[in-house]
Amino acid sequence: MAQSRIKAALMPLPALTPLAASLPETVPFVGPESIERTRGIRFRARLGANESSFGPSPAVIAAIAAAAPESWKYCDPEVFDLRQALARHHGVTPDEVSVGEGIDGLLGHCIRLFAAPGDVVVTSIGAYPTFNYHVTSFGARLHAVPYRDDREDLDALLAAVRETDAKIVYLANPDNPMGTWWDADAVTAFADALPPTTLLLLDEAYGEFAPPGTLPPIDTGRGSVLHLRTFSKAYGLAGLRCGYAIGPGPLTGAFNRVRNHFGVSSITQAAALAALADQDYLASVVTQTGAARQRIDTIARANGLIPLPSATNFVAVDCGRDGAFAQNVLNALTDLGVFIRKPMAPRLDRCIRITAGTDAMLNVLETALPEALTTARR
Amino acid sequence: MAQSRIKAALMPLPALTPLAASLPETVPFVGPESIERTRGIRFRARLGANESSFGPSPAVIAAIAAAAPESWKYCDPEVFDLRQALARHHGVTPDEVSVGEGIDGLLGHCIRLFAAPGDVVVTSIGAYPTFNYHVTSFGARLHAVPYRDDREDLDALLAAVRETDAKIVYLANPDNPMGTWWDADAVTAFADALPPTTLLLLDEAYGEFAPPGTLPPIDTGRGSVLHLRTFSKAYGLAGLRCGYAIGPGPLTGAFNRVRNHFGVSSITQAAALAALADQDYLASVVTQTGAARQRIDTIARANGLIPLPSATNFVAVDCGRDGAFAQNVLNALTDLGVFIRKPMAPRLDRCIRITAGTDAMLNVLETALPEALTTARR
Repeated sequence: MAQSRIKAALMPLPALTPLAASLPETVPFVGPESIERTRGIRFRARLGANESSFGPSPAVIAAIAAAAPESWKYCDPEVFDLRQALARHHGVTPDEVSVGEGIDGLLGHCIRLFAAPGDVVVTSIGAYPTFNYHVTSFGARLHAVPYRDDREDLDALLAAVRETDAKIVYLANPDNPMGTWWDADAVTAFADALPPTTLLLLDEAYGEFAPPGTLPPIDTGRGSVLHLRTFSKAYGLAGLRCGYAIGPGPLTGAFNRVRNHFGVSSITQAAALAALADQDYLASVVTQTGAARQRIDTIARANGLIPLPSATNFVAVDCGRDGAFAQNVLNALTDLGVFIRKPMAPRLDRCIRITAGTDAMLNVLETALPEALTTARR
Repeated sequence: MAQSRIKAALMPLPALTPLAASLPETVPFVGPESIERTRGIRFRARLGANESSFGPSPAVIAAIAAAAPESWKYCDPEVFDLRQALARHHGVTPDEVSVGEGIDGLLGHCIRLFAAPGDVVVTSIGAYPTFNYHVTSFGARLHAVPYRDDREDLDALLAAVRETDAKIVYLANPDNPMGTWWDADAVTAFADALPPTTLLLLDEAYGEFAPPGTLPPIDTGRGSVLHLRTFSKAYGLAGLRCGYAIGPGPLTGAFNRVRNHFGVSSITQAAALAALADQDYLASVVTQTGAARQRIDTIARANGLIPLPSATNFVAVDCGRDGAFAQNVLNALTDLGVFIRKPMAPRLDRCIRITAGTDAMLNVLETALPEALTTARR
């Protein structure tokens, strides 16, 4: 990299826009492959990105193989079949569904559509960083409130929206990175209390894992809420980049003003369609995930740590000391071949975050954790 | 759609930004699937989107199947392996390559990074509409000059850049929709004559089909040019959404300020890597495409039409009358199950555009074209 930068520094180059010039070159999440490359290690347990290590349905794998020879055809820019299927699944109309390149892609479009440069957007300190990345990169202003008792603080979010006249408020339910949640009634009450001109982005990426009564019913006739869902988590398709938004037609239709219409690949569309059709497999993954979560609880407690309750496919584990200590535990686990991540915001940062992986992966964790704690305590 | 729009019209909703509110909800290209759905027909020959109907390499199909079970893992946000391979292939460094969701996705990022609202961007009247879509949707101003003799007019583009102090100028070489081209020396002279602070977006999507001497050498130490390439055309992977930009490190690195880092799926990365490695297959596709182009020439002439010379995988065919007549020919071909598209700009619109398809598809064209012309002449 250095060589070409030096070479380029000698040339006059086109100027970035003032906004673009103010942004860093970044990668929001350093991938495990990158850690392996830079540190020269091989992870034995991939428990950091809340992927579903139980994998996609066999029907999905078959659908991908079947679609492969047709890859020469452009994908359907209207994502017609998948939107039809999602609409049936959720009891809405197809125009109340918009499909994009993961929730990440949809979040970017939401900022671009509903928050002009200088507009205020409300979130929680320590919530999803990619959301913040999009807010900043479109020139909107972030206003973030602290978690309370390891949950996103609905009262504080509401007060911040009112105080700042926010265009958008972000809420993940269940929450990432803490795994905590609000029940449907609390979320509905929060949505109802918001000014109707404030867009609620309700990130339900982990919704399929949550206990009954967690997800508020989808009612596209009742307010300015976009439900954001994904095939990355319970459906086991993180690599394929497929998220979708459900909400009132004028909101979901607005994506057609700015989106990359061919952004969702033909294979991704075929895979998502097959995944949605295999609800039995989804149920089995949710069951396996619950068992894995329970096992992480047990492993954590056996090591004197405190697992937080979780409605997701991961467990935030309170390491009982400060953020530096939890970081040491993470570093030691990395050295032992266990990939995990951790919250970074004050107070939340006392935790590490462990994905509900396969038995084989959790065996590695079980062996490594005592050693990592010993190292971290030195 | 109507029902939910009526329902939603009764609710107060979050307001779009002024810029977003000024944009239409659109689909830049109506896909053949959509035409089939709305018209209740089935296309027998898919010759409208300049896809490679010869398909992807068998090695690519195998790579996709092999990658499918791993779809539960997030894709590499740094696209490390593919960027390494592309850098070797093109004789540049990996940081001089940025990979995105097709050239479409990269074009959007380029506008966002280098043209602020109100800045002028220069293109040709009738050139790639998705480029215009991105320019408009980021609030930049389009300044478009006519083609001359069915080619993009380098002198007029240069004059327009100077006159408007344009931040960006777009040139497709070889050109879409006309299939015409400039030789490398002309393009290099054009690039050299541009103000060094104007970014030249050199869309080389069809570059692999062009005769030797068409593509200017890639020299990342020599000016503000981004070469845009794709796996959608000669590599036969239109459905998988993989394009890449090559240029000076500060330009390619800038994409990391705004891109959706997980936008290129794991299967797409694996497929592109396998496609790049199979240059023998690429060469065979280029040969077959040349033969198909020749056959379209023959079919056109046999029907009294004039095929334009082409350096691409399609042939623009002059129907000898005005745009309305060419549109009638297109409509008649559609009714006969032949999917094609056509240029829409004045003068260019006398042509229809036919993709260099398989023998079976061109057999359908050969049979249908005389009938379509008879219908159109009525």
